Amino acid sequence: MDRRKMLGLAGAGALGAAAGGAVGVQIFDGPPPARANDPGAAEPFYGTRQAGIITPAQDRLHFVAFDVITDKKAEVVELLQKWTAAAARMTEGKDAGTIGAVGGQPEAAPDDTGEALGLPPSGLTLTVGFGPTFFRTAEGKDRFGIADKRPEALADLPKFAKDTLQPGISGGDICVQACAHDPQVAVHAVRNLARIGFGVVSVRWSQLGFGRTSSTSRTQATARNLFGFKDGTANLKAEDTALLDEQLWVRAGDGPEWMTGGSYMVTRKIRMLIETWDRTSLGEQEAIIGRNKGEGAALGSAKEFDEPVFDGETIAMDAHVRLAHQKFNDGARLLRRGYNFVDGSDGLGRLDAGLFFIAYMRDPRKQFVPIQTRLSRQDALNEYIRHVSSGLFACPPGVSGVDDSWGRGLFV
Amino acid sequence: MDRRKMLGLAGAGALGAAAGGAVGVQIFDGPPPARANDPGAAEPFYGTRQAGIITPAQDRLHFVAFDVITDKKAEVVELLQKWTAAAARMTEGKDAGTIGAVGGQPEAAPDDTGEALGLPPSGLTLTVGFGPTFFRTAEGKDRFGIADKRPEALADLPKFAKDTLQPGISGGDICVQACAHDPQVAVHAVRNLARIGFGVVSVRWSQLGFGRTSSTSRTQATARNLFGFKDGTANLKAEDTALLDEQLWVRAGDGPEWMTGGSYMVTRKIRMLIETWDRTSLGEQEAIIGRNKGEGAALGSAKEFDEPVFDGETIAMDAHVRLAHQKFNDGARLLRRGYNFVDGSDGLGRLDAGLFFIAYMRDPRKQFVPIQTRLSRQDALNEYIRHVSSGLFACPPGVSGVDDSWGRGLFV
Repeated sequence: MDRRKMLGLAGAGALGAAAGGAVGVQIFDGPPPARANDPGAAEPFYGTRQAGIITPAQDRLHFVAFDVITDKKAEVVELLQKWTAAAARMTEGKDAGTIGAVGGQPEAAPDDTGEALGLPPSGLTLTVGFGPTFFRTAEGKDRFGIADKRPEALADLPKFAKDTLQPGISGGDICVQACAHDPQVAVHAVRNLARIGFGVVSVRWSQLGFGRTSSTSRTQATARNLFGFKDGTANLKAEDTALLDEQLWVRAGDGPEWMTGGSYMVTRKIRMLIETWDRTSLGEQEAIIGRNKGEGAALGSAKEFDEPVFDGETIAMDAHVRLAHQKFNDGARLLRRGYNFVDGSDGLGRLDAGLFFIAYMRDPRKQFVPIQTRLSRQDALNEYIRHVSSGLFACPPGVSGVDDSWGRGLFV
Repeated sequence: MDRRKMLGLAGAGALGAAAGGAVGVQIFDGPPPARANDPGAAEPFYGTRQAGIITPAQDRLHFVAFDVITDKKAEVVELLQKWTAAAARMTEGKDAGTIGAVGGQPEAAPDDTGEALGLPPSGLTLTVGFGPTFFRTAEGKDRFGIADKRPEALADLPKFAKDTLQPGISGGDICVQACAHDPQVAVHAVRNLARIGFGVVSVRWSQLGFGRTSSTSRTQATARNLFGFKDGTANLKAEDTALLDEQLWVRAGDGPEWMTGGSYMVTRKIRMLIETWDRTSLGEQEAIIGRNKGEGAALGSAKEFDEPVFDGETIAMDAHVRLAHQKFNDGARLLRRGYNFVDGSDGLGRLDAGLFFIAYMRDPRKQFVPIQTRLSRQDALNEYIRHVSSGLFACPPGVSGVDDSWGRGLFV
């Protein structure tokens, strides 16, 4: 019962996306093939890793953080099972439920909301994570008897210099990162998960994004952030298998067994003061970033992927590219997967725009925390940015098959 | 100096958009050819009509409303000229200014912000409109000596039943509707217009959208809104030439000469209470809309484009499709061009989502106002929607060539 087949459509939309068709249980493990020429195709849902981490970054994002509003463990476990089944269906391009948007009895509410009818799978990935408050509430309560399963690596992030975080759009018990090549498909997925979770979870905050500022595969060109610079040149890539084992994936012995094969996610909503930036000279912009704007090469180098030369001060001591580089951070690296955002305007005559930063890593205490500690104190870019939201989530390994479900390792 | 050629790129992005290339001065007049298979291509900017009205609706929207913050007419005229030149360049896929994002002197701020470097024109259209307050401020001031040029058809909209409008995201002196197949291209255009307008205009509000809920051409499949229903089946279409002359385009003698060949635009941000809707039965949803959800056919009819049969009560008396139909509105029709939106969540556990309604017409007093008066009082859908913002703008005819500019007819 593929969404398109059910309706007898060949795929709607001006993109004329090639049909992905209904797919069976595909197993995802390791760098996937480039699907750049088929934005309608499906990404495999089941596998040893969760999709949506090293999957070549799709064009659009809808990120949602939920608060769990029940204290009953059984309700949470049941919801995670329902969500997993719905996620598997939606990533294949099917309705969220078996009845669908237009099936069943007219006196019943549909088990799919319908706005993705006729749209292909569009590379949808749904990646789940659990925040610190899922294990123990901010008030210290162990609601679900899993406080002892909280990994040490999921330590609350420290307050960084210049943080201006808004609690209402930070944190959350459970997050889902929905990425797709069509925003309507990503929105449909999040909206149906929220619908299924009614009474058990409540949407705490959600964020849309576009422009995949950090490419996660060498098959992708580096996209640009709203400062107009290429972003993600030095990102970890899906093809860096050995580096990913060292920097991205949680290994056996790193912490609780249920996280082995998973990864930790940090989100930061970074408001850019783009009106100020736009009145800054090209030379100063390039000095602040440490790269030139056209090619994206490090200052003093010729090409985007040339290794930056940090001797001397061609790249300033407070340039972003220097402070963020692994050479000055004990080799620590991140797999970034951020998106540009514009949330309208701010009531003060300015666009409310910036970067929704997402990064995956093996241990935030050794990677994001020291890097951001340094950046928050010294980065010349700080004059033009404000961190307004923050999230930290433990993303378990993939769902192995139809008998497995999100967070199952946590509750056995 | 095409954005891609300058950088020697063949077009970035996972969509692998076919290159549109630099285009010359194309003249747009009448229904354009379908460009569904080439989302990277350019739409012509110059023509007797503004592009972005009957242009087949692109996938993404960035709409912006500006307040003019100067009382000096010359500054406004100069800005409109600068904007027109930048709009012509950007719709061709060029930088906003002649120097560009990476040209010129390092001590100068670039005259393009850079985030669209490497992206093709992506069907960008920029459509300008002037609000009632451009002619005379809310305080009654005729800042620019054009109060007598305000068309009678640009009469302030009445307050409709159940309106819950927020002034901060309503109205505006000048609006620009940016539509493109790539959100980054639409955002880039609005951001650069705001940059160019610094000191003369200020962003009052802005809105992103996706999903082109109202197709404007028979070459397009009907898309779905966030209620999951097809939206725009009965829309005026680019191919309806005679109807467009009657219902869409302002004719000589309708009002002031500067608007002949133009059209009036009404915007309404319509928040949908989707969590409530999602718990409503399929039968009730279909009764409220007056169409079935799968095919989009009027109740009692078989196919989407079958003319609805309003005899009897197969289609309820308060069904949306009945109340909005021209048969019950003295033949009045609209060319709708709305987009779905999700603006994150509302702090109450719900997605902040809905429809950003845009409609073009020959005379709002005879078209939108009577239709909305009826809908606001009787539509069964009102239980599930809230109108939270409203805009009204006079959109002049197209820019005829490089010697012409936005609003020139107003100031001669």
